Formats: sequence, C-alpha cells, structure tokens
Amino acid sequence: MTTNIPRIVVLGAGYAGMMTTKRLTQQFAPEEAEITLVNKHNYHYQTTWLHEVAAGTIDVNRSRIMISDVINTRRVNFVQDMVKKIHPDKKQVELESGTLDYDYLVIGLGFEKATFGIPGMDEHAFSIQTVDKSRMIRDHIEYQFSRYKTEENPSDDMLTIIVGGAGFTGIEFVGELAERIPVLCKKYDIPRNRVKIINIEAAPSILPGFDQELLEYAKDSLSRRGIDFLTSTMIKEVKKDAVIVGDEKEEIKCGTFVWTGGVQANRIVGESGFELTKGKVNVDQTLRAPGYEDVFVLGDCAWVMNKDTETPYPPTAQIAIQEADVCAHNIRTLIFGGTLQEFFFDNKGTVASLGGGEAMGTIFDGHQLYGLQAKMMKHVIDDRYLFMLGGPALVLKKGKFRPF
Amino acid sequence: MTTNIPRIVVLGAGYAGMMTTKRLTQQFAPEEAEITLVNKHNYHYQTTWLHEVAAGTIDVNRSRIMISDVINTRRVNFVQDMVKKIHPDKKQVELESGTLDYDYLVIGLGFEKATFGIPGMDEHAFSIQTVDKSRMIRDHIEYQFSRYKTEENPSDDMLTIIVGGAGFTGIEFVGELAERIPVLCKKYDIPRNRVKIINIEAAPSILPGFDQELLEYAKDSLSRRGIDFLTSTMIKEVKKDAVIVGDEKEEIKCGTFVWTGGVQANRIVGESGFELTKGKVNVDQTLRAPGYEDVFVLGDCAWVMNKDTETPYPPTAQIAIQEADVCAHNIRTLIFGGTLQEFFFDNKGTVASLGGGEAMGTIFDGHQLYGLQAKMMKHVIDDRYLFMLGGPALVLKKGKFRPF
Repeated sequence: MTTNIPRIVVLGAGYAGMMTTKRLTQQFAPEEAEITLVNKHNYHYQTTWLHEVAAGTIDVNRSRIMISDVINTRRVNFVQDMVKKIHPDKKQVELESGTLDYDYLVIGLGFEKATFGIPGMDEHAFSIQTVDKSRMIRDHIEYQFSRYKTEENPSDDMLTIIVGGAGFTGIEFVGELAERIPVLCKKYDIPRNRVKIINIEAAPSILPGFDQELLEYAKDSLSRRGIDFLTSTMIKEVKKDAVIVGDEKEEIKCGTFVWTGGVQANRIVGESGFELTKGKVNVDQTLRAPGYEDVFVLGDCAWVMNKDTETPYPPTAQIAIQEADVCAHNIRTLIFGGTLQEFFFDNKGTVASLGGGEAMGTIFDGHQLYGLQAKMMKHVIDDRYLFMLGGPALVLKKGKFRPF
Repeated sequence: MTTNIPRIVVLGAGYAGMMTTKRLTQQFAPEEAEITLVNKHNYHYQTTWLHEVAAGTIDVNRSRIMISDVINTRRVNFVQDMVKKIHPDKKQVELESGTLDYDYLVIGLGFEKATFGIPGMDEHAFSIQTVDKSRMIRDHIEYQFSRYKTEENPSDDMLTIIVGGAGFTGIEFVGELAERIPVLCKKYDIPRNRVKIINIEAAPSILPGFDQELLEYAKDSLSRRGIDFLTSTMIKEVKKDAVIVGDEKEEIKCGTFVWTGGVQANRIVGESGFELTKGKVNVDQTLRAPGYEDVFVLGDCAWVMNKDTETPYPPTAQIAIQEADVCAHNIRTLIFGGTLQEFFFDNKGTVASLGGGEAMGTIFDGHQLYGLQAKMMKHVIDDRYLFMLGGPALVLKKGKFRPF
C-alpha cells in the first residue's frame, strides 16, 4: 500500500463500525483513502437480535453476517484481531499481533456489562452481550431443564429464570422467554407451572421512558404469558443460585440469572486515556473525542448530547447507524474540505418485540403501534438496516420480514 | 373388572415388557385374561438407540414411542406409576400410589449402571441409561462447548470426552461422537483438533467377544475419525473433571465422562427378595424365578444360561424380544395347560453401528458384514422390531431404513 493517501482505521464491526466502513467505501474512491476495519471475529452480529439467541428462539447464525459478505475485502483491509490499546498521541492502535498507524480513527468498540459494583454480578450473572455469551444463556437454560430431569430430588428453583433490568433488552428478552419456555417444557416433559420467570427492576415501572399506555400494554401481555414482575426492587447481591433483593435482603432462588440492567463502554476506551463521562467518551457534536480532531467515537462508546433536551442519547442501534453517516461525511470533509456536519438524531420510532406475534412501540411523530402491526414494523426496521448494509440479497438471506 | 379371570401384570415397558404385552394380547381373548402394564413413563424407548440420543445425532423423540400408539389401551390396563417393591409371597406389587394384585407377574424392569465400587462413579459419571439421562449427556457436551467459548482462559480439557468401556454400547457411542463432534465444532467455531475423544477399556482389546477381524475393522474406522483408545487400562477413580487410571494412578483431565462399562439389574428386584446371581435373577429355562411358578423375569433383570455353552446370554434387545415369546406362551400354558417352552436363543446376528455410514457385524451363520452393507442390515434389524411391535405404520413413523 502507498502511504501518501490518508489511512482510515475503523475499530469494531458493530452497527457503527460496519455502517461507517460501508459509507466510507461509498464516499472515497480507492485511490483517495486506505480503509482498514479491525474486528475480533470474522463476522458482524445483530446486537438487537441477541435476546432471541439467548432465549433460543432464533439460531445463532441468523444473528450474524460474515463481514466478507457485505464489505468488499479487496477495497477494505479487514484485520481479524483484538484491539489492546489505542495511542491517540502516536496515532497508533496496538493489536494483539501488531500495531496499526492511522490518520483518522473511528472507535466503535461497543459495550460491556455494567455491574455497578453489585457483589457477585461479575461471577454469576449472564449477559446478552456477544454471540457466544448469548448462546451460553440458551445452553444454560436447557442444561438446567436437562439436569432437572435427571437429578434425584430436583428443586423447582433450578428452573427459575431471573432477569435483572426491565429496560428495552430485559423486556424483549422476557418476551422471547414467554414463547420459548413452553416449547422447552414440552421437549423435556416438564409442566409449565414449575418454571418461574421473574423480571426485577429497580425503577417503579418497567420500560422507564416509554409512554404509559405502551408499557402497560407490554406488562399485560407479558403477565398473561407467565412473566412475574418485581418493580421498585433493587438487586443487592448475586449468588451462584440466588439473588438477594431489597433492604430486607430477601433471597430468591434461581437456576439462571441474566443481567440486562446496565451497559458501559468497552473498557479499552478508558484504558487508552480518553476522558470519560459516565464511562463513555463525551464527544462533540461532530462526534470527535475531546482534544483529538482525528478520532471519532460512535455507538455505545460515545456519550452524545441531545442539544435540544440537554440529555444524552440512549445507546441504540438506530442512533449508531445514523452516527456512521455523520462520521463518514466528516472524515471526507477533514480530507477534502467543506463543512463539518453536526449529529442530530432523526427518530424513526422505537418498537419493542414482546415475543411471538406481540410487540409495541411508537413511530415517526409518536404514533403508537400494538400487536401484529407493531411486530411487522419491527421486522421492517430490522430489515431496513440489512438493506442498507447488504442490499436486497442480505435481506433475503438474513431478513425477518420478506417483502420480495 | 371381574376377578375370576387371571390377572397378568407386566412391570416395565422396555423391549421385554412391551413385546410380552403385545404377545399376551395376541394369545388371550379379552375374556380370558386381564392384562396390566406398569411403566414409569407413558412412552417406551429404544434403549439400543440411546447412544445416538446421547451423542446428539438423533432427536429424543425418534427414540421413543407412545405406549398408547402400539398397545390397545382398551384391551390392556396401562398404569403409569413407579414400582417400589414386589411382594411375590403376597402376589402383590407395591406402586408409588397404590398396590396391584396379580396371578402371573412378568418382571422387565431393565438395568442400571454398575459401578463396581469405583470411587466417584456414582456422582460424576454419566450413563446411557434412560431417555432423560442420555439427553443429559448431549446437553452436557454442548454446555462444555458453550462454556469454552465464554470463559476467560478456557482449557482444552473442558472439551475432552472420555468414554469408559469399549463394549457394544461404548463403541457404538464413540462412533456417533466421531460424527457429531465435527458438527458441534462448526456450530461453536472451535477447531476439531482441540477436542479429544478417549475410549478406555480394562480388557486388552475393544469389543471383547467379537471376531478379531471385526474389532480391528472397528478400531481402524474409529481411529481414523479421531477416537483414541486406551486398552488394558483400569479406571481407578472418577473425579468431577478427570479420571484416574492404571496402577500409576495417572490423571486424565476431561469435561465429560460417560460410563458404559457395566450394567446390573434394576435394584428393585434384589430389594424384593429375589435370589441374585451377579446382580440378576437366575431364572430356569422356562424363564421363571427360582421358587415362584408365577413370576417370570426377562431382559436385563434375568440371568439366563445357554445350556450348550454353559455361559449366560448377554443382555441384548434381541434376546429380550425372544424371551417375550416364550414368556407369553408359558403363561398361556400355565392357564390352559400344554407343554412349557424352554428358552433357546436363535441368533440372527449382531451388527454394531460405528457412526455415519459405518458399521460391522455378523449375521446368521457368522457371515461378516462391513461398512454400508452392515449399516443397512443394522437398520433392517432395528426396523424388524418396530414392525413386530407396531406394524408397517410404526416403521414408517419411527423407522430408520424405509423400504416402503
């Protein structure tokens, strides 16, 4: 490779990294910029589908896409490696097996479980975080069912599943469990009423931030399908086979505990010396890290303020994808001149799947959708991303709603 | 029900019990005898297919048949219950939820794992014994693969599978693993060479009792597909994550240990006061328990001598099925008079499956079969039983080789 053309390095092939790479290949001719994408695996995965992998309602391979299927690897250098540290002052990235120099850096290294220092959370909580960790949850639940059928005097507690956190992921996950557990009960000849699914949330209601009607719809739908809710309940400690909740330190036994109650930026970002706000890089409106004109931080690693409301944007796929457009545009501007874009979120709506044919959410101007209509919209949203990433072929291959 | 017609009670719906019940319904008109079948589950399972369930190469439901699908439950009283104890002097069977009186009793309660007092065997060894226990093996192996992908610094030992015993079941099981493990490796993105499968046998060769050519064929086929053999090696102790072998007490680490090295009669038989020879009831040539003219013992609970060779018959499905014919005939003779039959085994051959398209064995007069030809014969043998039990419909539904 020649060295007189700008080197753009993208770290992480999540929503932000994949879409940025895609946009960069569209905005730059091959002779205008050298583009490198670094990722731990040779596949990209749909983080927003992992709760389905974790429940076992979709196969692992539905949730992942080979990077070489959607990124032209003759145009983009794809490096399968682990990022160890970023040295922004040297404009260098340290990988497990070498180093990479860059002129422009895009950090999209995603999130990890935030434990808020709750004892036992690190050791005993599963999290819906990567393909492998999500599959582990599915396998663990089945393992508990299998053990239940072979132990001498098994306790029903072995079958209890506790989900910590009733935010978007927690609710979508218990929705999938509501569909999955009856199937597992049939498979293992276990009466459904022996299996408890408990969703624990510290806030007074589930889905904080959602419209009251929507969250009531969700709660009704899920309660009817056998999900128990414990709101206004703090988790104090996690043990191997129980969680301790509330000021009275009540112990609730369980066979599986999944924590969806908090995420923070990949720890590499902090370890590389970037200044953090609540564990994320407080980027400017052009999505660059403070003090580094050539470093963009996107997705779950970035703390992006909504100027209108003066609150940060939530860590969603939709936002990460929109950030990618601004990032790619701004890198082109830095190289060829023009006006830098500021990020502003164009909210196309939010739909939460509740398992099976159930869903609810808002679209566009806050219009509410319920049930099958919402479910179809959810599929349209999922497929729109696949379409942007890989065109109609990818929608056909991995899509959920098949309009063709 | 009237009480002046003889009451025949069959305990256990394994090969012996199912086939005896079937034959009894054919030999007695409804007004001639009252037939009761007692079984823990509402299904019969093919014990000879369980090694495939354990490896994960066939689904659980392929291996089991609803009892009501093959036994006319208006003709036969089917009681789903656990046998707790037999009182042959009172002619009574104690069940978990009641008692049953009988005039004639057929005991076909099957086998359990024989541990020979090896320390740790009871707690840490899996066994290919029931549908649930076999599925547990499949789920445990997958669980280890899943853990391997999510632990911080996993050891390859977690993936090692040790099978104790290289008799018929042990060899058939490692044959299935040879097919299954590459599939699991692909599913979990794990290189095949990280997974070890070790078959440990105390005797100097695998498959003791088989012809030398046959067992060499088996060993070659399995070694080529990645099975390691340790013969002349005694297992001294089983730990949670290792087995200790030989006089030097060598430790071999593993993630899964499956014991196929010995079976004994269901412990209820001994606990009910029947006299035992090597853990089984030494029946006479008419298959009746010593001292009890009205109690027949069949299958893995029975010690049946081959008068010609003065050795006991091995515990196989083929023998259990043939015993059922003699038992049903003899019960009819006891009621209506005639000559009691003596059991003599008509050896139709033995074929061992080695996984995939591989098999080997002998048929009829000792003629040897290998590879696909043997595999087809194995399917014919499996299906012949289904045909006897449930006619062509059952062969179509559950059969392996579909000649229709």
